[in-house]
Amino acid sequence: MTPLEEMGRKAKEASRRLAFAGEEKNRALAAISEALRRNESEIIAANAADIQAAKENGMTVSLLDRLTLNSQRIEGIAVGVEEVMALKDPIGTVLGGMVQTNGLKIEKVCVPLGVIGMIYEARPNVTADAAALCLKSGNAVILRGGKEAFNSNQCITNIMRDALEQAGLPKDCIQLVQDIGRASANEMMTLTGYLDVLIPRGGAGLIKAVVENAKVPVIETGSGNCHVYVDEFANIDMAADIIFNAKTSRPSVCNAIETVLVHKNIAQQALPAIRAKLHEKQVEIRGCTVTCDILKDIVPATEQDWGTEYLDYILAVRVVDDIYQAMDHIMKYTTGHSECIVTESYRNSMLFTSQIDAAAVYVNASTRFTDGGMFGLGAEIGISTQKLHARGPMGLEQLTSIKFIVQGNGQIRI
Amino acid sequence: MTPLEEMGRKAKEASRRLAFAGEEKNRALAAISEALRRNESEIIAANAADIQAAKENGMTVSLLDRLTLNSQRIEGIAVGVEEVMALKDPIGTVLGGMVQTNGLKIEKVCVPLGVIGMIYEARPNVTADAAALCLKSGNAVILRGGKEAFNSNQCITNIMRDALEQAGLPKDCIQLVQDIGRASANEMMTLTGYLDVLIPRGGAGLIKAVVENAKVPVIETGSGNCHVYVDEFANIDMAADIIFNAKTSRPSVCNAIETVLVHKNIAQQALPAIRAKLHEKQVEIRGCTVTCDILKDIVPATEQDWGTEYLDYILAVRVVDDIYQAMDHIMKYTTGHSECIVTESYRNSMLFTSQIDAAAVYVNASTRFTDGGMFGLGAEIGISTQKLHARGPMGLEQLTSIKFIVQGNGQIRI
Repeated sequence: MTPLEEMGRKAKEASRRLAFAGEEKNRALAAISEALRRNESEIIAANAADIQAAKENGMTVSLLDRLTLNSQRIEGIAVGVEEVMALKDPIGTVLGGMVQTNGLKIEKVCVPLGVIGMIYEARPNVTADAAALCLKSGNAVILRGGKEAFNSNQCITNIMRDALEQAGLPKDCIQLVQDIGRASANEMMTLTGYLDVLIPRGGAGLIKAVVENAKVPVIETGSGNCHVYVDEFANIDMAADIIFNAKTSRPSVCNAIETVLVHKNIAQQALPAIRAKLHEKQVEIRGCTVTCDILKDIVPATEQDWGTEYLDYILAVRVVDDIYQAMDHIMKYTTGHSECIVTESYRNSMLFTSQIDAAAVYVNASTRFTDGGMFGLGAEIGISTQKLHARGPMGLEQLTSIKFIVQGNGQIRI
Repeated sequence: MTPLEEMGRKAKEASRRLAFAGEEKNRALAAISEALRRNESEIIAANAADIQAAKENGMTVSLLDRLTLNSQRIEGIAVGVEEVMALKDPIGTVLGGMVQTNGLKIEKVCVPLGVIGMIYEARPNVTADAAALCLKSGNAVILRGGKEAFNSNQCITNIMRDALEQAGLPKDCIQLVQDIGRASANEMMTLTGYLDVLIPRGGAGLIKAVVENAKVPVIETGSGNCHVYVDEFANIDMAADIIFNAKTSRPSVCNAIETVLVHKNIAQQALPAIRAKLHEKQVEIRGCTVTCDILKDIVPATEQDWGTEYLDYILAVRVVDDIYQAMDHIMKYTTGHSECIVTESYRNSMLFTSQIDAAAVYVNASTRFTDGGMFGLGAEIGISTQKLHARGPMGLEQLTSIKFIVQGNGQIRI
């Protein structure tokens, strides 16, 4: 057995115990949040080692910021764990059932998935967030964080494991992969028989590598090539506000937009208004030829732009002949995350929402609303852009499965 | 583009149209069932070509039987299509929703998965069954049947495609892979960007190959190493009846049992009773050493027996010390399909149903009940033995996903 298979075995064993844990789960979460606060200085010291190494390796300022833990951020993590604790436990919920004419009673019950693998990048707060959600939903978790955050992750994980034990649950409900080379990530993707699901959380490169190489079931998250279509019947001010918000309020996240499509009949008025608004944040516009004709002095867009998730202050713009061409464009380039139409036309709003295939389809609102909090899930472990098992923001419910419990008194099948 | 990618592109295009089809779906199903009946002689002629080739290749009698279509079986297929037609259409169901304090209206709506791939083996009736379920649930399907049934599958598929067109839907909602070499199956497993899910239906070898090689999301089906545990507090007659039914009523199916575990305190009385019953159908018993001591003249079981899905008139039997050892054995060897305890003990029934992790967990009833019909799904496309997306019998609902429709009047995120 490799070290990772050994972790898989331990996780599976721990998950059997965790599957029928009741109040112990909340006791453990309370103990975790208390211990995170109590060990603040220890966490900050471990994090300092990561920061120093990252500086020596020339990490960018924005990545360094994501990596950094301080008193306030640790308090934020502890509060996050308490928020998960306050959520309703989905496990054991009876989702349906019946008594058959032969007297057989069939119940469909919510159960944990079992063992969840998480591969993520440089943000050490994910370690506690993800572990809390997995624990509350009765799943053992194997965490594989980025190597840049290893000391921080290790410290946080050890604190959580001690708290688990204190609450009467197996430590191995939460484990951190110790080997942070690329090989361990690859091995995790092929840990069949141990992992019930693998959730990658990070940049496009990580997600792609996992989807390409995984043999275990995967939930693809967080790739967002999102569009706003400004319909011929749009309120132009509203369109400019929505585009400005969806592009610039936080350009680095997956629910930010990357391309705007504008109906040709409204382009002459809408494009200058949109540009004026985006100018406040110096957004670079890359336009199709018609857009370039109208706006002048902008960068021409290439085919590659339509498929690019900039995650930056850059926006591609294309003028389309009609709503059908807009929808064709979106269906060609969408990653299935969040798509928006701005229109005052009832017909076009219905057409767009029924025909666009994405996790979230918006009429007259910013795509930035796609997240677990806004959609009423309480907390989220990621945003699924696939259609199997979970789609859109994933909360506790998306970390569960079902089982049928069938009770009889000797029934046989004839 | 390879021929299969071209099929994928066509399926994706057809699925966009099918996603918002209403009554056309039932019109198409009615036309399909009518056309299958009307073209009976054509289907039988195509099937005869398959049968002849199979005979020349020395196909076994039982496989030949599965391959054969006659008037009665074609009527059965047509009736099956009508039954699917009569099921409630899940697409468009509003599954939940809310209005946020900012006025944003969020609805969660049932949508099709998109494009489903099916890889299956020698039974040509699967072609129509699977296509009908996919069509009703708004999914385009790419079928890849066994090469032995190619002529039959081709004939049935052409009939269905004509019926689709007649009902005003794209032919390419249903396509059959024309290249029946192994390469096309492998290519299907990696058809990312086109297939939303791949469902293999067949023997353990096929399922394993798909799980090992697929890059598209997969739902694993139909592997059933099922157990009956005869508890110390079991009614022995009931146990023998359940075991007899679960082993012999149809040994070749996935919900048949393969191993019986017997509590040591009841083994002396139970084992002879079980053997006597199984003797009626000449079931071969392979026992652990204790079983061999009690029953004499039976074949000793090896480690390999505990993990084998015989699908035959063979049963492995092990005597266990207590319910915990029984549960450990099951959790070690189960494929997560159907597991049963026979007991009159309330405590042990609760212990078993809460701790055994399988799609269906039974108390005092035959595992043979695990199927879509019995569980109230109407029809099934397979029985999932994984925990992601679907578990247990898969009906229409399991062929769907969700999308969030968000309606606003200019909301932006602050």
